[in-house]
Amino acid sequence: MKKYVELYNTIRKEIEQHQLKPGDKIPSIRKASEIYNVSITTIQNAYFDLCTDGYIVSIDKSGYFVTDIAAKAIDLSEKADDTEVLFDLTGGIADEECFDLSLWQRYIKSALRQKNRLLSYSSAQGESDLREAIAEYIYEKRNVATSADRIIIAAGVQPLLQILCSLIDKKQSVSFPDTSFTQGIKVFRDYGFDVHTRDKDADIIYVSPSHMTSWGNVMPTKRRLELVSYSQKNNSLVIEDDYENEFLYNSKPTPSLYALGKDNVIYLGSFSAMLLPAIRISFMVLTKELADTFKSNEETYAQTASLTEQIALCNFIRDGHIYSQTRKIRRLYTAKAKLFYNKLKTAIPCINARISENSLQVIVNTKKPHTEAEFEEHGIKIYMPDENTIVFSPVGIKAEKFDELINILNVNIFLK
Amino acid sequence: MKKYVELYNTIRKEIEQHQLKPGDKIPSIRKASEIYNVSITTIQNAYFDLCTDGYIVSIDKSGYFVTDIAAKAIDLSEKADDTEVLFDLTGGIADEECFDLSLWQRYIKSALRQKNRLLSYSSAQGESDLREAIAEYIYEKRNVATSADRIIIAAGVQPLLQILCSLIDKKQSVSFPDTSFTQGIKVFRDYGFDVHTRDKDADIIYVSPSHMTSWGNVMPTKRRLELVSYSQKNNSLVIEDDYENEFLYNSKPTPSLYALGKDNVIYLGSFSAMLLPAIRISFMVLTKELADTFKSNEETYAQTASLTEQIALCNFIRDGHIYSQTRKIRRLYTAKAKLFYNKLKTAIPCINARISENSLQVIVNTKKPHTEAEFEEHGIKIYMPDENTIVFSPVGIKAEKFDELINILNVNIFLK
Repeated sequence: MKKYVELYNTIRKEIEQHQLKPGDKIPSIRKASEIYNVSITTIQNAYFDLCTDGYIVSIDKSGYFVTDIAAKAIDLSEKADDTEVLFDLTGGIADEECFDLSLWQRYIKSALRQKNRLLSYSSAQGESDLREAIAEYIYEKRNVATSADRIIIAAGVQPLLQILCSLIDKKQSVSFPDTSFTQGIKVFRDYGFDVHTRDKDADIIYVSPSHMTSWGNVMPTKRRLELVSYSQKNNSLVIEDDYENEFLYNSKPTPSLYALGKDNVIYLGSFSAMLLPAIRISFMVLTKELADTFKSNEETYAQTASLTEQIALCNFIRDGHIYSQTRKIRRLYTAKAKLFYNKLKTAIPCINARISENSLQVIVNTKKPHTEAEFEEHGIKIYMPDENTIVFSPVGIKAEKFDELINILNVNIFLK
Repeated sequence: MKKYVELYNTIRKEIEQHQLKPGDKIPSIRKASEIYNVSITTIQNAYFDLCTDGYIVSIDKSGYFVTDIAAKAIDLSEKADDTEVLFDLTGGIADEECFDLSLWQRYIKSALRQKNRLLSYSSAQGESDLREAIAEYIYEKRNVATSADRIIIAAGVQPLLQILCSLIDKKQSVSFPDTSFTQGIKVFRDYGFDVHTRDKDADIIYVSPSHMTSWGNVMPTKRRLELVSYSQKNNSLVIEDDYENEFLYNSKPTPSLYALGKDNVIYLGSFSAMLLPAIRISFMVLTKELADTFKSNEETYAQTASLTEQIALCNFIRDGHIYSQTRKIRRLYTAKAKLFYNKLKTAIPCINARISENSLQVIVNTKKPHTEAEFEEHGIKIYMPDENTIVFSPVGIKAEKFDELINILNVNIFLK
């Protein structure tokens, strides 16, 4: 070990073991070199590191002093914990078969080859080529007609809402019909908006037409029209979170509010659910006015979405994989919900169960009240809007596990 | 082309060309099949797609009606624009030699192999193994002693500040000495904090000790101690953004405020500057109290950082590459600033220039006032704190380009 490191350790120990107390003056470099009988440089190096680590400080002209660093005891042993979940039925995970990861790997690899792009920060608004690809995609798929310069990209819906909140007047009322979307409600509350769960006269109306409730209700076309025309009369801003619309196409045609409305609808979309939860890329189509406000303050925003993933997703969309992926996921997930429903009915014929309108969840109504904790005890994570309603999103569970899962439910919950 | 597609196109054109007007009732499915002399199914398919695309809507019992979709003309030609920059001297880009991208690619590839992890969302707080790696890293490097469960990960400093703002009382005053950090100031303003540029009695003090100003001033140890003890007396919260500290080690020892302070310092760090701008991963060490508040509301936050990049960075740190990377970048960037300074002095001997305290920037003071726009005209992006001060961050420019750059500056700006 180098001399100065030895000396560093000696003094550090003396401080940590309180032989040297906070505020104590320690010998000058010259004195120390006499005391320890080592060179000036050795002392300088040792003191240098002690300073950097905050054990001592040098105060101009008056010398070196011990800080109170040792007085602070912090338990470093404590580790971050992750509770063990056997079955996640909250829809928070994806099915292993649902996404061709090796295909995605190819796109990531090619993105990582674009060295020059990776050397600079992504624009606050998001990569322009991805925004153009998204503009084409949502026009084709949802008839959302917009130019790329009105699209904002971010790492999820929450950061998008934070941007939106920073663009609009804070003293407004917001209606949030789906109370289970706590992440959205939190953002508006934090930004000082007046949040209601249901208020058709609110200045801002947040709605997920394809996922109106945690148990997957779908807004009928008739109500979509009413909402659009009503919001126009009231000059209220509609935030359309088109979450899970991809799964609906087969069941019934659902025009987007954006396509039906005038320039008072903001359209939100995300790729995490369609592709892979790990891919954190969402987008927002702003009104012309809000897009201009954003651009005039662009330097005050930082992009949150990974640049590598933005480049990869752009080419993934351009090559048309997003469409095949949508079809694949829709087929797979709806089939799964159906299978889970059938198995549940067979195992527990008397059970009051149904498949959700968006055909992704199985909703069970029980006479006997239950709690989410009850399920957690058996390693099952589910969402309960109330004590008599259980929402199962089986999309993330392997089909061959259904029997085991249903057996656990049967024995420990329903037949108890 | 399929019959129903033809029909779809015909009706769509009639709507877009206003032969069919908003509100017009269109023939019932049965009627239409007579009119167009095609099967019921053909009509159903065509109407189905027209509904989905929002051209018509079906209103229960009363039939199909034309929407006002055609009334909306939106310019789709408009493309997202990116202004051409030849030399970015704002420090916003990295040097091509600065980062071993092929090494990073290896870690990303291995991360993408962890399929099961990628199938679920990253925890709101961030991946626990990365948080543990960071805890060790900052203890080793900056003597910041914390457990992983007090670390929050996000895609940049801005989302971290948004989380912080949501955790603390909004009615407080915040001091922001570095007015050039508009992204930070914006967050606190948007969340309703009372922001001052300089106020030592503020409830919250935001400071970047290694980058106090846009021209790279460093806070002397003496002032660090004063700030820490003063903030403790006043019970004010100190937010230490340790931005660019990595570059200082050689020039002078700088203990972190966190190491010097008691439990009233929040420590912020980022990897974008050390590794690659494209990697959007930053972290925040909360006080015990705030960490508990966060955890009790964890479900109301969504993780913004890419899960793939979190996994990759964790192993990158564990394998020790972060340390060699730090040394490499420090050597490279400081050498560059020095070279740029020397070349500038040689080309324009009379120029009033100096290297910044953190040895990353070259600051030029001019008698004649200038504007950032002047430089932009010649494809040069720089930052000017005032009309007589120009801050050059040459880190992102290839050394062999310096002569060309300085020549442009010479001819078009300084000798003008």
